[in-house]
Amino acid sequence: MGFVQRNADSHVDVLIVGAGPAGLMMANWMSRCGVKTRIVDKRGTKIFNGQADGLQCRTLEIFDSFSFGHRAWIESNHMLEICLWNPDPKTGVLARGDRIPDTIPNISRFQQVVLHQGRIERFFLDAIRENSIETGCNGEPGTKEAEIKVEHGVLPTSFQFEESAADDEDAYPLTVQLRHLTEEEATPTQKATLANGQSIVDGLFRSNLSADDTQDVINLSNSIADKAGRTETVKAKYMLGADGAHSWVRQQLGFKLEGESTDYIWGVLDIIPITDFPDIRMRCAIHSESSGSVMVIPRENKLVRLYIQLTTTNVEDGSGGKKFDRSTITPETIIASAQRIMQPYKIEYRYLDWWTAYQIGQRVGNSFSLHERVFLAGDAVHTHSPKAGQGMNVSMQDAYNLGWKVASVVKGQANCSILKTYQSERRRIAQDLIEFDHRFSRLFSGRPAKDVMDEEGISMDVFKDAFEKGNMFASGIAVDYGASVIVAKSGSAKDQGDGTEVLGDEKLRVVSSDGLATGLEVGKRMPSFKVLNQADARPWHFQELLKSNGTWRVVVFAGDIRDAAQKRRLDRLGEKLGGEDSFLRLCTPSGARYDSVIGLLSCHSAPRQETTIFDFPEVFRPWDENDGWDYWKVHVDDQSYHEGHGQAYKNYGINPTRGCSVILRPDQYISWIGEMDDYKSMDSFFRGFMVDQRTKGGAKTAIAEGSKKGLFAGTTAGTNGLRGAANGVEMTAGDGATQGAGGM
Amino acid sequence: MGFVQRNADSHVDVLIVGAGPAGLMMANWMSRCGVKTRIVDKRGTKIFNGQADGLQCRTLEIFDSFSFGHRAWIESNHMLEICLWNPDPKTGVLARGDRIPDTIPNISRFQQVVLHQGRIERFFLDAIRENSIETGCNGEPGTKEAEIKVEHGVLPTSFQFEESAADDEDAYPLTVQLRHLTEEEATPTQKATLANGQSIVDGLFRSNLSADDTQDVINLSNSIADKAGRTETVKAKYMLGADGAHSWVRQQLGFKLEGESTDYIWGVLDIIPITDFPDIRMRCAIHSESSGSVMVIPRENKLVRLYIQLTTTNVEDGSGGKKFDRSTITPETIIASAQRIMQPYKIEYRYLDWWTAYQIGQRVGNSFSLHERVFLAGDAVHTHSPKAGQGMNVSMQDAYNLGWKVASVVKGQANCSILKTYQSERRRIAQDLIEFDHRFSRLFSGRPAKDVMDEEGISMDVFKDAFEKGNMFASGIAVDYGASVIVAKSGSAKDQGDGTEVLGDEKLRVVSSDGLATGLEVGKRMPSFKVLNQADARPWHFQELLKSNGTWRVVVFAGDIRDAAQKRRLDRLGEKLGGEDSFLRLCTPSGARYDSVIGLLSCHSAPRQETTIFDFPEVFRPWDENDGWDYWKVHVDDQSYHEGHGQAYKNYGINPTRGCSVILRPDQYISWIGEMDDYKSMDSFFRGFMVDQRTKGGAKTAIAEGSKKGLFAGTTAGTNGLRGAANGVEMTAGDGATQGAGGM
Repeated sequence: MGFVQRNADSHVDVLIVGAGPAGLMMANWMSRCGVKTRIVDKRGTKIFNGQADGLQCRTLEIFDSFSFGHRAWIESNHMLEICLWNPDPKTGVLARGDRIPDTIPNISRFQQVVLHQGRIERFFLDAIRENSIETGCNGEPGTKEAEIKVEHGVLPTSFQFEESAADDEDAYPLTVQLRHLTEEEATPTQKATLANGQSIVDGLFRSNLSADDTQDVINLSNSIADKAGRTETVKAKYMLGADGAHSWVRQQLGFKLEGESTDYIWGVLDIIPITDFPDIRMRCAIHSESSGSVMVIPRENKLVRLYIQLTTTNVEDGSGGKKFDRSTITPETIIASAQRIMQPYKIEYRYLDWWTAYQIGQRVGNSFSLHERVFLAGDAVHTHSPKAGQGMNVSMQDAYNLGWKVASVVKGQANCSILKTYQSERRRIAQDLIEFDHRFSRLFSGRPAKDVMDEEGISMDVFKDAFEKGNMFASGIAVDYGASVIVAKSGSAKDQGDGTEVLGDEKLRVVSSDGLATGLEVGKRMPSFKVLNQADARPWHFQELLKSNGTWRVVVFAGDIRDAAQKRRLDRLGEKLGGEDSFLRLCTPSGARYDSVIGLLSCHSAPRQETTIFDFPEVFRPWDENDGWDYWKVHVDDQSYHEGHGQAYKNYGINPTRGCSVILRPDQYISWIGEMDDYKSMDSFFRGFMVDQRTKGGAKTAIAEGSKKGLFAGTTAGTNGLRGAANGVEMTAGDGATQGAGGM
Repeated sequence: MGFVQRNADSHVDVLIVGAGPAGLMMANWMSRCGVKTRIVDKRGTKIFNGQADGLQCRTLEIFDSFSFGHRAWIESNHMLEICLWNPDPKTGVLARGDRIPDTIPNISRFQQVVLHQGRIERFFLDAIRENSIETGCNGEPGTKEAEIKVEHGVLPTSFQFEESAADDEDAYPLTVQLRHLTEEEATPTQKATLANGQSIVDGLFRSNLSADDTQDVINLSNSIADKAGRTETVKAKYMLGADGAHSWVRQQLGFKLEGESTDYIWGVLDIIPITDFPDIRMRCAIHSESSGSVMVIPRENKLVRLYIQLTTTNVEDGSGGKKFDRSTITPETIIASAQRIMQPYKIEYRYLDWWTAYQIGQRVGNSFSLHERVFLAGDAVHTHSPKAGQGMNVSMQDAYNLGWKVASVVKGQANCSILKTYQSERRRIAQDLIEFDHRFSRLFSGRPAKDVMDEEGISMDVFKDAFEKGNMFASGIAVDYGASVIVAKSGSAKDQGDGTEVLGDEKLRVVSSDGLATGLEVGKRMPSFKVLNQADARPWHFQELLKSNGTWRVVVFAGDIRDAAQKRRLDRLGEKLGGEDSFLRLCTPSGARYDSVIGLLSCHSAPRQETTIFDFPEVFRPWDENDGWDYWKVHVDDQSYHEGHGQAYKNYGINPTRGCSVILRPDQYISWIGEMDDYKSMDSFFRGFMVDQRTKGGAKTAIAEGSKKGLFAGTTAGTNGLRGAANGVEMTAGDGATQGAGGM
């Protein structure tokens, strides 16, 4: 097996096992936040499990927050309508019974789309490369060495956890042995992994990876050859097991997947269809009278995916249960089933891109975390039917939920209490998903009812109703995280989550005033409407202002700042936020701009043309001695020239005079809603889990020794004349006001 | 000078001299159309003339038609509003007098933006690489050798034109000697080239090219070293001189730039401004009482460009005219001018990105073409003031107008008569541009009028009016090409163009029936509204269906196909279009799909849910034996689920029952409008300039020998059963209908 190189030893903040969508999402977060990270995958090359997947609206919102949403949006196939086909009640002939929108209108600025998984991995790899060179994850920012690279052909072989060090935030309690596989070991035979972990060799395989992978494949092959056979030891502070249904990490922890398999067996074909079926480019649910069901998922590049119910292949598994007989399942038998179900329409193909078959199993992990040092995500903790297009989405969203939490603890910004919310929030989602999938699969796999008296059959009205309700769930928009130290809402935190205790000190608990923004729900993601930048009148979808960069955000809906009383409230809030003991400052390390840990955004409701950014207190438009004012923080709810009126206040249900304030997590979920000027609650909320940077590690920051004039003290005298003025006409030039700038 | 390598000799269809925006646009078209091309530039590296430029709406539409519009849209700064600042009539203090939208609402789906020229060149280089490898411009499709590469450090040294061969379409009448410069020769000193061709050394220079250029720079350097000093001979069919204001090609042809310089002198600063001026992120026109004017152009990356009128630096040029004294112009003197003009507001900077100064000159070339074998484009044939943001746009649009024409002649699709329209259309635009610029510069450089009696001053009402009218011109949307062999409209072709004769045989002239689409104008580009794909309900902006790929398009607005009479008209049209002697077929080379030279799009007005693509004759949804039906050609004007109702018929002014047909050029300009089923006029129009592929070069195509059943004859018998049916329920399976497909 090659020699063991004893000296190879590395310390990382985060070790990620598995480079599928969940692992890549985690690596992407780490790269964005500049956290020292390694990501390994035992596979020597990418495998195209399932090849394609639906992307929910919420997943696209997340991609967009990482600035690659448009790539998915442009390349993918968009699904707009679901057509429900069943036997006509009178003739028994297959007919289109109903149409419903595939994505519920107005829940998101994106709609559900379908795209090859290889492309999604490509977007992540590009983003991780760019981010990590920029932030300097594993070296100096700007250098190639800073890049987080996915290490393929690397297998973890042993795991140790030093429990006594679990509470020491500077410790590396995890020790993992990694073995670098030979190229032969790392190249799997072409297999299609099934959703429930079983495998069947697929028929045809043609990669439709785009050309930009070529260099990666060459590099990969070289790098495997270089290190083949080597073993090394990695010490880590945190680890993520995103290594699939057979998760090695889960096995090390001794955690279990709980649940069971169903009797439903489905075949999957990715083909370019030759057909006279008129809705082949729509998403369709086709129930035949007695031959089973087909789901049609139109894809990119003329492809269509068919999920086809197989009925005649059950065999006893020897222990009383049923298993399907693999040998009878071929593309030929699958398309024959589709032809039976879809008759009198014809369907055939000349080009088959990929195929598989699976038996639906629905399981959830009994625990998602070991001492908040090791976490599990994705297929490692939930498996279910692929037809609702949830798998990849929920997996990526697991890691999306976890990533910023781990990063902010590693960076000493938040204390580790927030890490418990991962299991509370995501295990609950997995439980809801399995329940949804169970109901959905039964309705989909059942025979349609012949009439109202046919109780064993599935009523098509019930089916449609479930589909519509399921659509809200499936969009990812319905996710509603329960009360916790980072979600200030009332009620039982245990009941709202998976049972984990995630509240801090009950006496310090902050609860929101939901009534101040009737269109917002604490625990859900911030919805998006268009607002205008005050300084340049450009319309932005509100979510576009909420890039995933690891910062919390206080959003001040300032109301009508023409109103004198309201303006006074805003000024007083600005004074507190700008003060030297403001939580903005306390949470920020010395030397960083005061809004780099908790950002400040505002949106007012006065007419844009009657206001300027200088009507806002300075803290809302941060000053920089090289760049002048920050023109990208103050917004307004007003009419745009070319993109209509977002009506943000109306849609968010916020009083246009008095406004309100909202705290958003780094993942855009709403933590708190309160009065616009309720500085005290904001302060209490952040004190619940954020680390005071003045006292941290005994190091004092400049703030304790600095000027008493608040945040803005200490900027260069030469520009004070400019900064002091809210309006040039009224300004009296300060010392050297026009001589202070360089180059003049 | 190095040795001369006598054997180096290459034949190309097109030689492009100059790799600025015009040259790159031409190369991009050639790459899209698969034309064998070389593009050379004497500069060894990119120079950032002017660094940044506005991109008009029309330019963004063109970029989008080449699939990189989104890159410009995402990276650029968007300009939304123009603020007009003048002395307050009562107090004399500078005040915002008015606001107007920067882009007139609803004229385009894009608005004017600003972006660094280096990024635009990057988009072109990426597109050229991808396109030419795909189409196989200079080698086999799919190979690296097929790529069109910009050859930097290559200088043309002699030019010969064999006039006797000018009419032989297979000849290479152009001979050009190219010299490969040494790296030293090819690396210019850092200069800022002025709009009128004069130069001044700039102060600071910092490239803000993004990282993805690194490899290019390395390759470039190697390639120059390899070939330094070599001379070679190139024989070409066509040549484009896009080599700037000092155009070597223009000098070879002996053509002149006609026009004159003005006395106006302007400085340009690209800075990160430190200011209390509240509209610094708006486009502003600032007229001071007596210190001159400033134009503010907000840019990407916090930068702002200031155009600043300089008033005190004129000197006699020795021949009675005035020249400016370069030695007195520095960034310091320029910002001091800005400070005088913008007082009482303060403006300064610490970061200066680039600067220059220029004297406005307005000139147009006396001819744009030598025998329609050599063409000139861009600065080589028009120079003017940069402030209206026209320069780069008009230059790129010159080449955009020319590229498809040259490609279709090279490929034998069209006869060379269409090439005369280049000068007719683009020289006229250049003349209009100079006239616009003359008017605009005078208004901008003049002193504001003190009151209505002040006749020497510029009335701010007149200025605003000119600005608003100018905005329509500046958008690029107003371009209206005159009557010609490729624009079927009435009136004098000479008067509508630059005087060139561009009509063919008057007896064959086709004229449009404009009244059938009151929202469309023959000679202008096709406006865009949203329509839905019939097969999958996805909304598309109509322009998104008009990708620049070299094809003409017949757009059939089919009207209400539920109406029996209308349906009969459509069926009859389908029969003619699908017939074996249809112009679609006659214009298409043997072996290519019948819509590969002239494409067919349709858009009907019946409710989407009451129709399917099978309601359309087969010719509208082309059949392929591997891919089945083409689902991306039939569209409908109906409500979408998420993006409203485009109201295309209403906006195009088309009768929703009877429809109409429209012919679009490969550049999206409208050639002809007529009755929906006026096959005869369509046929006549194309016969005016398209080449019959059956008779071309004596080679017979399959159509003359083929089946008498029309276009669809000859597809495989195995799928006839499927194809024959418009509706599966009514279908009777043909021979082998379900056995015909492979893999089953």
